[in-house]
Amino acid sequence: MKLALIGAGRIGKVHAQAIYSHPDVTLAAVADFHQPAAEALAEQYASRAASVDEIFADNDIDAVLIASSTPTHAEYLERAARAGKAILCEKPIALDLARTRDALQVLSEHPVTCALGFNRRHDPQFSALKKAITEGRIGALETLTIISRDPSPPPAEYVAESGGLFRDMMIHDLDMARWLLDEPIESIFAVGSSIIDPAIGEAGDMDTAMVTLTTASGKLCQISNSRRACYGYDQRIEAFGSLGMLQAQNESDTRLRFTGEAGQVEDKPKWFFLERYAQAYQLEIGDFVAAWKEKRAPLAGAQDGLEALRLADAAERSLREGRKILLDASL
Amino acid sequence: MKLALIGAGRIGKVHAQAIYSHPDVTLAAVADFHQPAAEALAEQYASRAASVDEIFADNDIDAVLIASSTPTHAEYLERAARAGKAILCEKPIALDLARTRDALQVLSEHPVTCALGFNRRHDPQFSALKKAITEGRIGALETLTIISRDPSPPPAEYVAESGGLFRDMMIHDLDMARWLLDEPIESIFAVGSSIIDPAIGEAGDMDTAMVTLTTASGKLCQISNSRRACYGYDQRIEAFGSLGMLQAQNESDTRLRFTGEAGQVEDKPKWFFLERYAQAYQLEIGDFVAAWKEKRAPLAGAQDGLEALRLADAAERSLREGRKILLDASL
Amino acid sequence: MKLALIGAGRIGKVHAQAIYSHPDVTLAAVADFHQPAAEALAEQYASRAASVDEIFADNDIDAVLIASSTPTHAEYLERAARAGKAILCEKPIALDLARTRDALQVLSEHPVTCALGFNRRHDPQFSALKKAITEGRIGALETLTIISRDPSPPPAEYVAESGGLFRDMMIHDLDMARWLLDEPIESIFAVGSSIIDPAIGEAGDMDTAMVTLTTASGKLCQISNSRRACYGYDQRIEAFGSLGMLQAQNESDTRLRFTGEAGQVEDKPKWFFLERYAQAYQLEIGDFVAAWKEKRAPLAGAQDGLEALRLADAAERSLREGRKILLDASL
Amino acid sequence: MKLALIGAGRIGKVHAQAIYSHPDVTLAAVADFHQPAAEALAEQYASRAASVDEIFADNDIDAVLIASSTPTHAEYLERAARAGKAILCEKPIALDLARTRDALQVLSEHPVTCALGFNRRHDPQFSALKKAITEGRIGALETLTIISRDPSPPPAEYVAESGGLFRDMMIHDLDMARWLLDEPIESIFAVGSSIIDPAIGEAGDMDTAMVTLTTASGKLCQISNSRRACYGYDQRIEAFGSLGMLQAQNESDTRLRFTGEAGQVEDKPKWFFLERYAQAYQLEIGDFVAAWKEKRAPLAGAQDGLEALRLADAAERSLREGRKILLDASL
Repeated sequence: MKLALIGAGRIGKVHAQAIYSHPDVTLAAVADFHQPAAEALAEQYASRAASVDEIFADNDIDAVLIASSTPTHAEYLERAARAGKAILCEKPIALDLARTRDALQVLSEHPVTCALGFNRRHDPQFSALKKAITEGRIGALETLTIISRDPSPPPAEYVAESGGLFRDMMIHDLDMARWLLDEPIESIFAVGSSIIDPAIGEAGDMDTAMVTLTTASGKLCQISNSRRACYGYDQRIEAFGSLGMLQAQNESDTRLRFTGEAGQVEDKPKWFFLERYAQAYQLEIGDFVAAWKEKRAPLAGAQDGLEALRLADAAERSLREGRKILLDASL
Repeated sequence: MKLALIGAGRIGKVHAQAIYSHPDVTLAAVADFHQPAAEALAEQYASRAASVDEIFADNDIDAVLIASSTPTHAEYLERAARAGKAILCEKPIALDLARTRDALQVLSEHPVTCALGFNRRHDPQFSALKKAITEGRIGALETLTIISRDPSPPPAEYVAESGGLFRDMMIHDLDMARWLLDEPIESIFAVGSSIIDPAIGEAGDMDTAMVTLTTASGKLCQISNSRRACYGYDQRIEAFGSLGMLQAQNESDTRLRFTGEAGQVEDKPKWFFLERYAQAYQLEIGDFVAAWKEKRAPLAGAQDGLEALRLADAAERSLREGRKILLDASL
Repeated sequence: MKLALIGAGRIGKVHAQAIYSHPDVTLAAVADFHQPAAEALAEQYASRAASVDEIFADNDIDAVLIASSTPTHAEYLERAARAGKAILCEKPIALDLARTRDALQVLSEHPVTCALGFNRRHDPQFSALKKAITEGRIGALETLTIISRDPSPPPAEYVAESGGLFRDMMIHDLDMARWLLDEPIESIFAVGSSIIDPAIGEAGDMDTAMVTLTTASGKLCQISNSRRACYGYDQRIEAFGSLGMLQAQNESDTRLRFTGEAGQVEDKPKWFFLERYAQAYQLEIGDFVAAWKEKRAPLAGAQDGLEALRLADAAERSLREGRKILLDASL
Repeated sequence: MKLALIGAGRIGKVHAQAIYSHPDVTLAAVADFHQPAAEALAEQYASRAASVDEIFADNDIDAVLIASSTPTHAEYLERAARAGKAILCEKPIALDLARTRDALQVLSEHPVTCALGFNRRHDPQFSALKKAITEGRIGALETLTIISRDPSPPPAEYVAESGGLFRDMMIHDLDMARWLLDEPIESIFAVGSSIIDPAIGEAGDMDTAMVTLTTASGKLCQISNSRRACYGYDQRIEAFGSLGMLQAQNESDTRLRFTGEAGQVEDKPKWFFLERYAQAYQLEIGDFVAAWKEKRAPLAGAQDGLEALRLADAAERSLREGRKILLDASL
């Protein structure tokens, strides 16, 4: 697969490394709004810099990985679909439902392999959790508890443009909930606070939030988010069912244990998503390439982005109205 | 302290053993609706059987431990208060708020040491958690996650008279939440399902529930309950704050680890409350005796019973109305 | 069982509490070289002080628990045997083999129930380990690793009279090795150092030691001892076999985990034998009483004391001679 | 660095992947006794097959990685040194001391960067352990316990040519002991058994062994080896000192925990060295390249191979003679 990378920022670099390590993918070109960034990254991985227009016009390019800034995602996705290129798009497609639906409409008219960057679905531990549930290890799944905390809050100016905690941060957890519950979400309820950084509250957002989901068959799910965990990236999932419980735990650099006067001490969790999900990014590329080759759906697709966004929107409405929001499955 | 025990059933026996082991307490008498039960227990611990009337009339008796059936609690509590005896009463005082308030009224007119059997406050691990929070180990507390699961569901006929999951089971977790959050609860939201045993649903109750609490300052709390965890009694609390996280974990019989072809295996959690909270029952007696001697309030009192019941009632209303219920702090 | 306690020191007090809590045992009398100590302890547990002579002469007394100073053990054991009383004797019977053999001779002429205080055999975790091995959980046992560390070294003056590390401290581990290996020890090899406290070396002893045992069938065992672990009492055993591994781990006060900037921190191990083996002391009394009633051998008897002492003596000889000592099974 | 790989077998493939992933190294050529193996591996990593003679004659090649069969190591190492090429040589240089000393003599006459493949020194967890000891985390190191078990025994025919357990398997642990103790080993004592596979015993080797080391200052060290752990590769080190203990624990694929009726179950350890030390092989290449660039000694060198072999030889002699062997530091 000849793959062009659009976006040479932090996440673009992660993808470039993952592409480079994959034996079946060639990094055909790198584009970035900031040309020198594209050039530097291209040079590092024996590729070339190119403009976005050049990439979409190049018939030799099989696929694009969209890792540019959020407001450009939907347009690039549509252009890629029209150009018949396979797409791996960083989430979100867009911050509003209408724009996302438009993009999905284009995709339905120009069907190409389209994967969405819900990286956590590719994390080995969460994959193993999903597999164990599917195989019936815990019998019938009854409840789900998702803890997800970032190491430090974003600057207030970022918050303003991020779409808010539900769309920017919890959307990953909402996707995990959908993926693991594996049946229609019936209702959502949300509470939130701004107790870490008042500036976040002043910007109209929150830094701490909890959401409760229910499904059609009566499964219950709790999500807990915080923008700041001083000990690092806290990413855990607990699935409980009729035959037992599965707990995906945090990863740390080593399993070295020190025992001294202060107690037994082990490493704190890995610092942030680049560390925790390093392997997930590689597996994501692998799934994308395999889906393209095998003409099958990737593990996470554009529709999953739309569904997670619907949940995030409903969470915000619940927060505002102080009540449970029923989700119309027919939407 | 000369202490009379009212109720010689399962929980009465636990208390008898704890009383017997306490160097400063004498088991002065045992009463039970079923006279032979009182006699058997009295004999085992070198005490004597007596009627409830005899106990309340006996000026030699300093205190009563009310471990009889729930519907009798309020009446015995009031009689004990009027007789000037110190009281350790199993929770709940009553299943409805009005009856509970009446009993508290009697207590306010006849002030005696009155402890309520919220056994978990005495669990060494939860005590250590509370102490660590109070000492600032995690800085400002921001969120609380309480997981509480019984090993197996009660028979449906019990469910009918239990007051329902919120009043019968979650009330312990609501008390823990109040105790650890340590500030007024502002709102409560609840969802519930009957997915374990349909008979429980038909009896008008549920077997799986989740509740979300918020406090005046913006702290958030989640509680997750299940009536059946096949692996035993699942009792965990996670407190998260600005400087870190505290996790109270399950206890098990041993820490023996087996590693074989199937993985690394450790004991499952202790089976139920008698096993998990064995030590808590002893410490509860200790606190009660100390409070009586030192003329101070015990760790949990009648007012705590009232407050937890108010939360349980509000949870039920939230469930019914599908919305967040605001709690009037002035109530 | 009417049981008299000889010795009201630290370990005597532990036994008094265990006796008091046992429903089938009455603490008939307490003796101590220091009369006020006996009186204080007797009063605390509703018993009476008596002289050793009175105890041996009292036909009402069924059993004695010998918890006096080591040099008196053998004599009291013989007197008790001659008086037909059941015996629970703190280890060691004596610090030399000849004296120990004499005592065993008296026991063989006056057969009474005689238990030796190898408390670790009663520890729930080690019991579970033993049971799992016996039940074949790890198939054929092949190697054993015993780690045993005290929290702090004894004063040098104690060391001089203790019989040395092998007889005073490692003797417990040698007994555990015998018990778990469950077949004749064929050879022993020892090394030792005085690297914690030079005064211990000057007193002719060591503070750090390692021993290797082999059995007739080719099982191998390592023991590692240290007189000072700053984090507390370190008592672990690892049994490895054809079908897996069993690891008995340290116990701690709680399982509370703190996660902060410095990592994930749990309680250190319990401080010393009184804390770690509190439950073992109770179970030891229970086994003693049951053995007496059922006229069966207790879990650890006088012969076990002799065998462990033989190993300790051989370890010392190995250390001196720098070679493996073969143990004559016919001795 | 232009690096040629000699040996395209199992371990050669691991190195090829590590070389390929390193940004500063080019895989210049691949040689193998079996030409098609060299060609296949060369093609996979965009390199070319070559003969050993061509490699040593090629002035463009900076370095060789010797991963051919053990009997060829010493000769290739000498040829590489004479050709002025940097060397990363799989352990051992040779199975006997005399041949090893000859090779070191050639190295001393032709000084080139020469690293020896003691892969464990590069394992992140053992590196962190070493670093913590060096930084004084546990104060003065006093004892070391090394557990090292393979998942399954080699075929008896391999055993015959392997040099025996001490030279083939325990040599890694002897190197770890030297590295961590960081002072002259004064004595060694060994015991061994053939209790897993009688064929191994008949071939004159053993499958289970324990070794005790002492150092000049009185530090003590135990090593326990088994050729078969049914649960996988068991690689643990415990370092104990005046201020605490450090434990390097096994790695597993995930940290997913299942709790069910049978207990709490986590993944077993990774299966074997390719899985456990995958990262170590990459870091080994990194250290080799950095040492070559910076003209510094690599983390493990030829002299370390000699020293570990001396210990393995002494262990064998101890086993034969049933006594502690003193090591002459001046050798």
